[in-house]
Amino acid sequence: MAKNMTLLWGSGSCPCWRAMIALEEKNLQGYNHQLLSFDKMEHKSQQVLDINPRGQLPSFKHGDNIVNDSYAICFYLESQFQDQGNRLIPDGPEERARMYQRMFEGQTFYEKLNNVIYYDFFIPEEERHDCALSRNKEALKAELSLWEGYLQQSPGSFLAGSSFSLADVVVFPTVAYLFRFGLSAGRYPKLGEYYALLKDRPSIRASWPPHWLENPKGHEALKDF
Amino acid sequence: MAKNMTLLWGSGSCPCWRAMIALEEKNLQGYNHQLLSFDKMEHKSQQVLDINPRGQLPSFKHGDNIVNDSYAICFYLESQFQDQGNRLIPDGPEERARMYQRMFEGQTFYEKLNNVIYYDFFIPEEERHDCALSRNKEALKAELSLWEGYLQQSPGSFLAGSSFSLADVVVFPTVAYLFRFGLSAGRYPKLGEYYALLKDRPSIRASWPPHWLENPKGHEALKDF
Repeated sequence: MAKNMTLLWGSGSCPCWRAMIALEEKNLQGYNHQLLSFDKMEHKSQQVLDINPRGQLPSFKHGDNIVNDSYAICFYLESQFQDQGNRLIPDGPEERARMYQRMFEGQTFYEKLNNVIYYDFFIPEEERHDCALSRNKEALKAELSLWEGYLQQSPGSFLAGSSFSLADVVVFPTVAYLFRFGLSAGRYPKLGEYYALLKDRPSIRASWPPHWLENPKGHEALKDF
Repeated sequence: MAKNMTLLWGSGSCPCWRAMIALEEKNLQGYNHQLLSFDKMEHKSQQVLDINPRGQLPSFKHGDNIVNDSYAICFYLESQFQDQGNRLIPDGPEERARMYQRMFEGQTFYEKLNNVIYYDFFIPEEERHDCALSRNKEALKAELSLWEGYLQQSPGSFLAGSSFSLADVVVFPTVAYLFRFGLSAGRYPKLGEYYALLKDRPSIRASWPPHWLENPKGHEALKDF
């Protein structure tokens, strides 16, 4: 089934990881894939540009259909393979509403994380400001409190409620980053529980970033959060 | 039907406009709504915070279901009212793939527009850099070329193909902003055609930002693009 699919990806990219979790959940193992190196700028190679004019990973093709954005890949796979693997959109309107809302808040969560841990990477040296980085850190702390609260209020163990959904597919990689970068599960117990619950889920284990397996610890940028 | 829905919104906000277009397309007229003022900081009022801890507009409630993100609102309404009004997700896999991809690229488009026209609004004075703004302008130009190309290659008049879809719901407000801020349809003819085709669509006319009706011209920030 998955032989007519190709994924170009990079290790440790949250968007790539989302796509890979969705592929696993939909039982689409066996797709063609190629691990490219961001360090070697392979995401700007002709091979990628042929599928993705933005030169970004993931880049994904199913037959002639090109879908590169990680959220788009998730929605596309769920709609094309609704009855295969796990259903990733809950039936109940309440849980479904929560799923959509958390999915898109997940983009803000991811952005606020990046604005802290990749500040120096994204902002040229002569444009960096300590006050901007401090503001970004405060914004991430506020964001963490929101998500800790969402998990506290959730009627189940997952972001949308009692079943694993697209919200978990797209947000889990962000949560994994937090703990890799030193976030304290003591200070954020619900996020800690959520991480512990999901990290051994088969789809997530199977797609765990290979360079994280070699180097399980990231730098400790978030240990004082 | 729409009496159990409440939308809190602000005039000229692209995210609010997306939600309002989707409500019109799904024949959900008659919902409760309240126009709030960003200038008076009403998006940070208790009324908003009760629904939306982020203090942002749109804030939307359907019965007890709270969905605030504009993309989440679009997906939610389409899934809850699939057979009402216009279907906004195409049936064909090819068109559907393109719809999802353009929807999410639309977020980048919107962000790159904001990084130019609202640079001074988002960046505190002491953190502004001419080189950053120039870079943002180049990025927006590259983005405009991409979209001009997408419309050139589209097998129909809409972003996903021959039918109006969620991609148009979420991207049209960005395109309307471009022309309000002086973009030249001579230089971007496909974007100009797309704008002309959609601006009189009933759902879009009905939800046109009221302060744009009073002041049809924005400042000319994009006239040299």
